[in-house]
Amino acid sequence: MTQEKYMKVALAQAKKAYEQNEVPIGAVLVIDGKIVARGYNSRNKSHDATAHAEVNAIRKACKKLGDWRLENSTLYVTLEPCPMCFGACLNARVDKVVYGAKETGSQTPNVLNGVNHKMEVVGGVLQDECADLLKSYFKSKRT
Amino acid sequence: MTQEKYMKVALAQAKKAYEQNEVPIGAVLVIDGKIVARGYNSRNKSHDATAHAEVNAIRKACKKLGDWRLENSTLYVTLEPCPMCFGACLNARVDKVVYGAKETGSQTPNVLNGVNHKMEVVGGVLQDECADLLKSYFKSKRT
Repeated sequence: MTQEKYMKVALAQAKKAYEQNEVPIGAVLVIDGKIVARGYNSRNKSHDATAHAEVNAIRKACKKLGDWRLENSTLYVTLEPCPMCFGACLNARVDKVVYGAKETGSQTPNVLNGVNHKMEVVGGVLQDECADLLKSYFKSKRT
Repeated sequence: MTQEKYMKVALAQAKKAYEQNEVPIGAVLVIDGKIVARGYNSRNKSHDATAHAEVNAIRKACKKLGDWRLENSTLYVTLEPCPMCFGACLNARVDKVVYGAKETGSQTPNVLNGVNHKMEVVGGVLQDECADLLKSYFKSKRT
């Protein structure tokens, strides 16, 4: 139930992205049961290729804690992370990544293969809600 | 010779990092023979796990051009990129990555395996100069 609780917070972030005409992906970073930072995809608005939900949440958390090491942290994100975002989690020493919808053509096994920092990855939490939001966004773009 | 010319610019950035007590890695982003942005690792100073040389250069270039797509661009970096930075290059549609020193335990083949955006990768340009700067930094930390 805890995973669902935080995924709902990530979903609320994804909805903010949707409202701003961005691909609706949201993330939340949690340490010891406390939300440290939230983030949502802002690639279009910021013109920044690195401004994915996960990187935005990680950067805010680092700034807030004054440390690039986010130890004992879990990142919740509505979509399976891309290689950049998994790499950012590894660099920030994130312990665990929990994602909602699965990415088509996932690179997860490739990216996590052979890295030193061990990071647990759990997928499929509130999968339908997370996927539906993305489907709704892309459908609205086609009509 | 062109590759060496830009790698020297990246090396100058790496030296700035060294002077600021950061792991000395530098990067430069070039489009149509023009330097669009320079960056150096600022992880310690900024307390930001994502503030690698490559991401810093990419973010600056995106901001300068007002576009998250850095088309026809080449990124020169003094050390073989980590998965996050390769992922950032892919997300920014960078055409080509040229790096200097090779990373021990490189994840490059894993990260680039099966991705949609095709990106050329060339390693070993001014390899010794790039590696020597890193060795000198880590040696200074041990004494």
